[in-house]
Amino acid sequence: MSLPSWTDGPTKSAIVDFVGRTVDHIPPEERVAVFDNDGTLWCEKPAYIQLDFLVRWMAAQVAADPALAQRQPYTAAAAGDLAWFGDAVTKHYNGDDSDLKVLAVGILSANTALTTEEHAARVSAFFAEASHPTLGRPYTSCGYQPMVELLRYLEDNGFTCYIVSGGGRDFMRPITEAMYGIPPERVVGSSVGLEFRDGNLVTTAQPEFLNDGPVKPARIWGRVGRRPIFAAGNSNGDIEMLQYTNGFRLLVAHDDADREFHYTAGAEKALGLAAADGWTVASIKHDWTHVFP
Amino acid sequence: MSLPSWTDGPTKSAIVDFVGRTVDHIPPEERVAVFDNDGTLWCEKPAYIQLDFLVRWMAAQVAADPALAQRQPYTAAAAGDLAWFGDAVTKHYNGDDSDLKVLAVGILSANTALTTEEHAARVSAFFAEASHPTLGRPYTSCGYQPMVELLRYLEDNGFTCYIVSGGGRDFMRPITEAMYGIPPERVVGSSVGLEFRDGNLVTTAQPEFLNDGPVKPARIWGRVGRRPIFAAGNSNGDIEMLQYTNGFRLLVAHDDADREFHYTAGAEKALGLAAADGWTVASIKHDWTHVFP
Repeated sequence: MSLPSWTDGPTKSAIVDFVGRTVDHIPPEERVAVFDNDGTLWCEKPAYIQLDFLVRWMAAQVAADPALAQRQPYTAAAAGDLAWFGDAVTKHYNGDDSDLKVLAVGILSANTALTTEEHAARVSAFFAEASHPTLGRPYTSCGYQPMVELLRYLEDNGFTCYIVSGGGRDFMRPITEAMYGIPPERVVGSSVGLEFRDGNLVTTAQPEFLNDGPVKPARIWGRVGRRPIFAAGNSNGDIEMLQYTNGFRLLVAHDDADREFHYTAGAEKALGLAAADGWTVASIKHDWTHVFP
Repeated sequence: MSLPSWTDGPTKSAIVDFVGRTVDHIPPEERVAVFDNDGTLWCEKPAYIQLDFLVRWMAAQVAADPALAQRQPYTAAAAGDLAWFGDAVTKHYNGDDSDLKVLAVGILSANTALTTEEHAARVSAFFAEASHPTLGRPYTSCGYQPMVELLRYLEDNGFTCYIVSGGGRDFMRPITEAMYGIPPERVVGSSVGLEFRDGNLVTTAQPEFLNDGPVKPARIWGRVGRRPIFAAGNSNGDIEMLQYTNGFRLLVAHDDADREFHYTAGAEKALGLAAADGWTVASIKHDWTHVFP
């Protein structure tokens, strides 16, 4: 039986029923499925995994140049003050972008002047050693097992699955094949501009895409040239992607403090729309027999 | 035998030898091939096909609002003065962007406020009726038969082929499957920004990408996340894409006034680099037994 980590019940049945109808009526090239990453495919609490990567990177910069510690975001990075970073994101969702802009400058400058290959090597080194701060497992084991099964189930039924995340494209790509079986050409994310220099592509400090909210459907079209028929997300940043999708809309609800985390912050509006518009909600507590591999 | 429209000789042998070595040594996921479109996959003379599309569109706007004819590019569009448009592009390649900017404003405003579906329908209607002004064949038969055979030959050997063109992404996509067997998700081109409105994506007048020169390798990385091992182009705008490619570099030389067109304008630097760096040059006159289907 497919989807072994999904509890038998209405959520699993809704997925299986939709896929069954699809296979009968929709040609394979139109079976496009899109998945958010943070909070949908992997754990995003207590902080985005990419934030841990960036904080470690900034802390290393401070170690090389201690004067940096006199200003944010380096002060927080050097002190391991993850709360400052989390607050910057929370403020952003409440309409105050001041700290997020300070953070963005740090992130962008930290990323500058690396070839894409050098950047990928740094990301791979991070995933080879970094572990989740409270779950007691490597980040590479922090993907949700039921969602990985869902990717395979859809593919087994002729779907093509894409990751469409607010996270960094070049942060995700080195690990998505191993964690999710999704190759780099099907990973869409936020990015900085790249400059062509001596035959290589080198990262700049220019933001290119912040792949969130209404940017997600525009980039799905830009990448795929088709409207998805299946979408999965978990937060307010996924609303437009779910609304753009003409078919099955899945929202992962983080309601299991024992096995993962319990939170609705940043997902209030999405949960409201799910209830109003009949999107399917996957409760981690009730719909997943296992959370992690 | 593969590549039937290619003359037996050193160019064809170079392609076949490269592909043979590749299949032995390079895993399929790394067999990425990228193709320019205008002048590489389809005829770009006497004017870009997309320019004909835009001129017809602007002429229709003038018919609806005659006052538009008092300014460029509408004056030229209403008069069917294709030379003005060609000159704007030539001036651009000579460092004078003044007319191209006037043209761009016309193009962008002509494209504004359509859903992606409406835009695709207009493009499809154009290709259903428009013919090449001198070759006496529909534009849909102006793709180069040897290059279509090359796409299939590479795919038969495990390659994944992408179109990476300075032409408009949403102008090419409605026709690339029929003309080249390339689906929309493997078409990368220039684009305007899209706005998410009432569940649809609507074109804006904001330029997003001019997919030419050094932008091509950056967008190949953005789309594919891998460096190509095969690239084909024909003009100076393809130089960086060819330099980024680690493998086979093919330049189509337009040297056949009888069967197609004879020109080197806009390709001088690329032809020089081909000679200096050992890129393979495909002479239309000598290497192709047939040009069009």
